[in-house]
Amino acid sequence: MRTFRLVIACPDRVGIVAKVSNLLATYNGWITEANHHSDNLSGWFFMRHEIRADSLPFDVDGLRTVFAPIAAEYQMEWQVSDSAERKKVVLMASRESHCLADLLHRFHSGELDCEITSVISNHDDLRSMVEWHDIPFHHVPVDPKDKKPAFDEVTRLVNEQQADCIVLARYMQILPAELCEQYARRVINIHHSFLPSFVGARPYHQAAQRGVKLIGATCHYVTEELDAGPIIEQDVVRISHRHNAEDMVRLGKDVEKMVLSRGLRYHLEDRVLVHDNKTVVFG
Amino acid sequence: MRTFRLVIACPDRVGIVAKVSNLLATYNGWITEANHHSDNLSGWFFMRHEIRADSLPFDVDGLRTVFAPIAAEYQMEWQVSDSAERKKVVLMASRESHCLADLLHRFHSGELDCEITSVISNHDDLRSMVEWHDIPFHHVPVDPKDKKPAFDEVTRLVNEQQADCIVLARYMQILPAELCEQYARRVINIHHSFLPSFVGARPYHQAAQRGVKLIGATCHYVTEELDAGPIIEQDVVRISHRHNAEDMVRLGKDVEKMVLSRGLRYHLEDRVLVHDNKTVVFG
Amino acid sequence: MRTFRLVIACPDRVGIVAKVSNLLATYNGWITEANHHSDNLSGWFFMRHEIRADSLPFDVDGLRTVFAPIAAEYQMEWQVSDSAERKKVVLMASRESHCLADLLHRFHSGELDCEITSVISNHDDLRSMVEWHDIPFHHVPVDPKDKKPAFDEVTRLVNEQQADCIVLARYMQILPAELCEQYARRVINIHHSFLPSFVGARPYHQAAQRGVKLIGATCHYVTEELDAGPIIEQDVVRISHRHNAEDMVRLGKDVEKMVLSRGLRYHLEDRVLVHDNKTVVFG
Amino acid sequence: MRTFRLVIACPDRVGIVAKVSNLLATYNGWITEANHHSDNLSGWFFMRHEIRADSLPFDVDGLRTVFAPIAAEYQMEWQVSDSAERKKVVLMASRESHCLADLLHRFHSGELDCEITSVISNHDDLRSMVEWHDIPFHHVPVDPKDKKPAFDEVTRLVNEQQADCIVLARYMQILPAELCEQYARRVINIHHSFLPSFVGARPYHQAAQRGVKLIGATCHYVTEELDAGPIIEQDVVRISHRHNAEDMVRLGKDVEKMVLSRGLRYHLEDRVLVHDNKTVVFG
Repeated sequence: MRTFRLVIACPDRVGIVAKVSNLLATYNGWITEANHHSDNLSGWFFMRHEIRADSLPFDVDGLRTVFAPIAAEYQMEWQVSDSAERKKVVLMASRESHCLADLLHRFHSGELDCEITSVISNHDDLRSMVEWHDIPFHHVPVDPKDKKPAFDEVTRLVNEQQADCIVLARYMQILPAELCEQYARRVINIHHSFLPSFVGARPYHQAAQRGVKLIGATCHYVTEELDAGPIIEQDVVRISHRHNAEDMVRLGKDVEKMVLSRGLRYHLEDRVLVHDNKTVVFG
Repeated sequence: MRTFRLVIACPDRVGIVAKVSNLLATYNGWITEANHHSDNLSGWFFMRHEIRADSLPFDVDGLRTVFAPIAAEYQMEWQVSDSAERKKVVLMASRESHCLADLLHRFHSGELDCEITSVISNHDDLRSMVEWHDIPFHHVPVDPKDKKPAFDEVTRLVNEQQADCIVLARYMQILPAELCEQYARRVINIHHSFLPSFVGARPYHQAAQRGVKLIGATCHYVTEELDAGPIIEQDVVRISHRHNAEDMVRLGKDVEKMVLSRGLRYHLEDRVLVHDNKTVVFG
Repeated sequence: MRTFRLVIACPDRVGIVAKVSNLLATYNGWITEANHHSDNLSGWFFMRHEIRADSLPFDVDGLRTVFAPIAAEYQMEWQVSDSAERKKVVLMASRESHCLADLLHRFHSGELDCEITSVISNHDDLRSMVEWHDIPFHHVPVDPKDKKPAFDEVTRLVNEQQADCIVLARYMQILPAELCEQYARRVINIHHSFLPSFVGARPYHQAAQRGVKLIGATCHYVTEELDAGPIIEQDVVRISHRHNAEDMVRLGKDVEKMVLSRGLRYHLEDRVLVHDNKTVVFG
Repeated sequence: MRTFRLVIACPDRVGIVAKVSNLLATYNGWITEANHHSDNLSGWFFMRHEIRADSLPFDVDGLRTVFAPIAAEYQMEWQVSDSAERKKVVLMASRESHCLADLLHRFHSGELDCEITSVISNHDDLRSMVEWHDIPFHHVPVDPKDKKPAFDEVTRLVNEQQADCIVLARYMQILPAELCEQYARRVINIHHSFLPSFVGARPYHQAAQRGVKLIGATCHYVTEELDAGPIIEQDVVRISHRHNAEDMVRLGKDVEKMVLSRGLRYHLEDRVLVHDNKTVVFG
């Protein structure tokens, strides 16, 4: 079922819901899902509506036009998206295949509602897996002494493909600040720890050192500061003394791919609203 | 913060949200929490609003008065409650103390927003624990050969105390049908299995026999059919071959009390809507 | 690291561990993992040792030879396996790809220590996916009016490939009793409910009808009685009123594949001991 | 059933299990539970046996006597305890009652196998609750400007009561280094975060700031470095944007008391072995 998604964040005040739902009712809009959140701390209000496209007398631009005055009146950060316009996603990976294979299979079986325009990797190992799924694969090696040419090429590819979103499916390289900025709130990373524990390299090794009883994974938007962006989703799995580092990697992989796929799904369905480095996820 | 809670269930159609939120906005109602659910299968719509009492120009009856015409127009099942009018709860228990002690402690520490009018038990064992909490304790023994006098007394006590809600905190007796009917959707039971598995007596024993790897608990409204009422909340805990029946009872107790206290909390805050023997829980 | 796995079940009595560990110590056997379980209810004892192969002065048959007298003395059900002899596994699937793709990827990335001799399916849909993994694919259509020819062919293939184990990765057909008997405790099924709830067809539909708050999956050995065999592993995922049947299928898939892959892993590593229709899993 | 618990940690080598189980078999010892762990990284071996007391021809000192030579030969850290000698526990609390009430109820209902010699608190608030359980309550106020007199009194009480173990059930004060040292590996704390995240004060506040999607609790032995001691047990609970700081405190309390009671239970049953600031928990 085709829907339009109206997503709003604005300073909280009385009457917002009435104003918005009146407008939708005026045009006979059939709301299939509605979520609201008033954040007492920040004084902001967050709202997401999903409306049947065929119940409205206009297309997505029509909805934008009639909504714009309300948005202006209430100083809203807002967007309207059309579920029929599938987001263009660039996946980036390195050598580890678990997250990539998981996303590719979900895409292949129709579970992930997006278009994967390509996979970019600094290694050639996963080419065949990607190409079996009929998705273009770009091998862009990164020279550790001079990373700029590689990231120029990555940037060129991403722009050329008009990506809406970049997913770092265990890419293991830090993207340049300009690209992060250009794609602010649209670069999704999976970190293999329960942030803010174990920032940076080798988190499972750090976890083993500390003797924790649960290990986790964190899906977050990438910002300039390493592993410090807004968290979209997290989960953990229980471990014990019987699990060595290799076991932790194996168990962690399952958490990573679950957390990344959930986080990406939320993003693709416009369910994630960011405010003050935190997220509201209408999951 | 005092709030009024407006809870609605009605056949779904366009404009309900607009109508309701308009009314609230007209009176300058400040919505602190709003939840909606459209059920595609049944074609019903469910909504719960929490509104700051001090933002409205009338009391809870005033809200009922202005809302009644809308309710009639949309054929709503509805109720308005006032968070300041704490529900009157009768707890019923037998000899096992874990659920009762848990609820009493939550009540005592201000976590459960209700008034516990009394505890009724078919045994006298837990009297001292209850009375330490300054709550009246009624020992109403049940004669297995003639249960009627006991349940007449229970009914009398419950009515006398004008209870809004009865909680069977491991009461281990089946309430008479008339009392269940009188308190339909207001008698809450905790069953010590993950329903619909292991209906009836000795569910942990049944679970041990079947060799399951998780055991659970289910909080549900009581209906005439045993353990078949609308489910409010469930949870499970992992077990293994190392756990014998005694361990399962011990581990199960923790799940039971968590599930019961969550379920009761949802009920007290008017978060549970029942339709077709299923619940919508705006948790 | 190559290991020999000594797995024992026998009536419990004093001195078993001493006898076994003495024997191993006599030959300088280096135990890397040891698990014991005394079941009070049945009076049986269960034990699993993993011993470094290179610490012993003989091969796996040598270990069997020196161990046989002890086994006889204590009336043990026992087996010794060699981690270097990877079990031969036949996967069976239908049209749903999630469990199959998950197992194939785990196999491909070296996480599942076995040999997959082939995939047998009653549909041809998944051929390309299987063949990309360099695994033979057999399309054996099942005529609903006369299933015998198909199952004769399945039996022939399984025997020809000298399978150690058959995995029903959402095969959706009931295997004939003779095949189940021939492969007793070696046919692994994934059922998409938390057994014993929702036996048989369309468990998610049944779950939606009952209004449960968690859905689950169960990995079990297949016996003649439908969905009643010894349970190896189970897990659940939380759902709410917001999840329709389609969502439950989607969320359930993730539980199914996790539970099946864990159960299979336990089986492949000889961690599952069956007694009285229940399992001891030394996970 | 009375048991002796033999707990061992030593450098790993061939023959330890044989030696120990032989000794036990010689005296006809009936092992009801046995756990082993070989840690590859450290090269250490950990073992715990639970033996029926009535199967041995001597008492716990007799077992110590016959075992000592083996312990010396293998350079073991070891202890033998008697389940009939219940550990003496001092509980320390401040004003928050949830952990204390939980432990007291578990004790009261026979679930915690120990003797609670007293509760020490820097406030008098919880006296009545403690005394209802027939447990002595000591109010030892702590002067923030001069804490020494208070901790001298605490030390005196703990020594006078010959405590085996001190449990900080949300005591909110840092014990002096000397007391921690005297009771090394016997002071158990509950920290209300998933360590190593959010060390120190107001962890829920820190968690809210960072926007995590799970909050947790950690039960650990106290060492001189704040919140850095060996972790015994951890768990988490899911939160979302809908939960404010007050909700997090409420949800966190349930995790705290579950984690503390599990950790304490492991400790009381001699299931926790510490090595290199990490624990082996034979749960």
